Amino acid sequence: MCDICVMNAVKDRMLSRRALFKAGAAATATAALAGTGAAPAMAAGHGGVVDMTHTYDHDFPTYFGAPGFTAEQMFKFDKDGFNLFQLAINEHTGTHVDAPLHFSADGQSVDEIPVGNLVCPLAVIDIAARAAQDADAQVTPDDVKAWTATNGPIPDGACVAMHSGWAGKTGGDGFRNADGDGVMHFPGFHVETAAMLIEETGAVAMAVDTLSLDHGPSADFATHYAWLPSNRYGIECLAGLDQVPASGATLVVGAPKHRGGSGGPARVMALV
Amino acid sequence: MCDICVMNAVKDRMLSRRALFKAGAAATATAALAGTGAAPAMAAGHGGVVDMTHTYDHDFPTYFGAPGFTAEQMFKFDKDGFNLFQLAINEHTGTHVDAPLHFSADGQSVDEIPVGNLVCPLAVIDIAARAAQDADAQVTPDDVKAWTATNGPIPDGACVAMHSGWAGKTGGDGFRNADGDGVMHFPGFHVETAAMLIEETGAVAMAVDTLSLDHGPSADFATHYAWLPSNRYGIECLAGLDQVPASGATLVVGAPKHRGGSGGPARVMALV
Repeated sequence: MCDICVMNAVKDRMLSRRALFKAGAAATATAALAGTGAAPAMAAGHGGVVDMTHTYDHDFPTYFGAPGFTAEQMFKFDKDGFNLFQLAINEHTGTHVDAPLHFSADGQSVDEIPVGNLVCPLAVIDIAARAAQDADAQVTPDDVKAWTATNGPIPDGACVAMHSGWAGKTGGDGFRNADGDGVMHFPGFHVETAAMLIEETGAVAMAVDTLSLDHGPSADFATHYAWLPSNRYGIECLAGLDQVPASGATLVVGAPKHRGGSGGPARVMALV
Repeated sequence: MCDICVMNAVKDRMLSRRALFKAGAAATATAALAGTGAAPAMAAGHGGVVDMTHTYDHDFPTYFGAPGFTAEQMFKFDKDGFNLFQLAINEHTGTHVDAPLHFSADGQSVDEIPVGNLVCPLAVIDIAARAAQDADAQVTPDDVKAWTATNGPIPDGACVAMHSGWAGKTGGDGFRNADGDGVMHFPGFHVETAAMLIEETGAVAMAVDTLSLDHGPSADFATHYAWLPSNRYGIECLAGLDQVPASGATLVVGAPKHRGGSGGPARVMALV
């Protein structure tokens, strides 16, 4: 049977039986919702779950400026008995992973990142006060030293995250913050910080709440070129950094797993 | 500046500075790889992380039979200094979430599933022996009773997963297992089991290692229509169920977060 024939056959058989089940399902749903509401939403052994992921859509700001996401509805519940969308996605859209392959010839693709590296002690470096004064601010080696002076060494397997306060700006032009020449202005990691983390720590990931590991005006992507080819990965457009402690949370990075990808939209959560 | 102008400007400035950084990055990478190898890959407080996600690509089997995924390379490292792909994805491809909206008019879309419901105690019901004899096998209420007799009550907030042994079949026609009439044959949850879980437990999710919550020959999607409109969600094409215990693991469901989606490819991990 051809593909379209299968799809139409499924649709037909759903429509023919739908009326029968619709009434029963509605009754069940009413009863069940109350049950779900009563169920605790916490994982055993954890105090809570913090969502570190922006909801994204056609309007979510992107590095290149063009929309990174489009959804086309292929099936509609009222007509077909179910909803289903076909998605067009630029890999580097929304809260997303930069795999080592993004800036290397043969680094790990997103499906090749070791799964153990996706569950990380989270170290949050807060430069929000400085970034509020200077949109081009960068996380420096001194910022890392200040963090370790308070919190101890960067844990092995850590994700080191920049909290610049930029997550609150995704609804407007301030997230890209481009000037008249099209040069963007937002914070990022200084290349010397990337080098320091590589040489002196066992960190496996770097995260930012902005559009790029490098700060906006970077013309050379120095931090990308230093970090990613070392088979460490990045997270861009992270949310929720104001809801987690500087130290002690565990980040779970739901990286996509399409073969050979350079990255992609991820669901990132923190267990606190 | 127009979108394509921005993209070209970025590409140009990357190429112009690339030679400068390439040598440095290569040297750094060599040193850093050793460091990464030494870093433990476990999260603090967990014994290990199990990947419950299939790698997916253009050839991964789908319910409708047509390819659910296509990637087009927009930028190549050798030419452009970085790699980036544009993706076309049918939401219900690979290891993926069925949001309540998939089979309801106004249930939760994938971005609306409460984040606490994405971190779940995992209850694995193993029907692999029966499914090896009967491809149309279903998880029955008696299977749930047998699980609880051994493991205690289904935990509040649980994901109840069917382990049928089907995860090993994704490389061939045996995963869809269609007969001469195009009717598929693979295991799933009986609708009475869905009703039982809704009425008697605080489970929030149901997972299968096959292409559908309903077994292959279902003509009415009874289990979908019972479960999803109750604002519980589903996971299809789950992997790794042979690597986790029947009880005691925590499932972390990295559901995608595009606005209004009926579901989508997810990164699912178990903390054991």
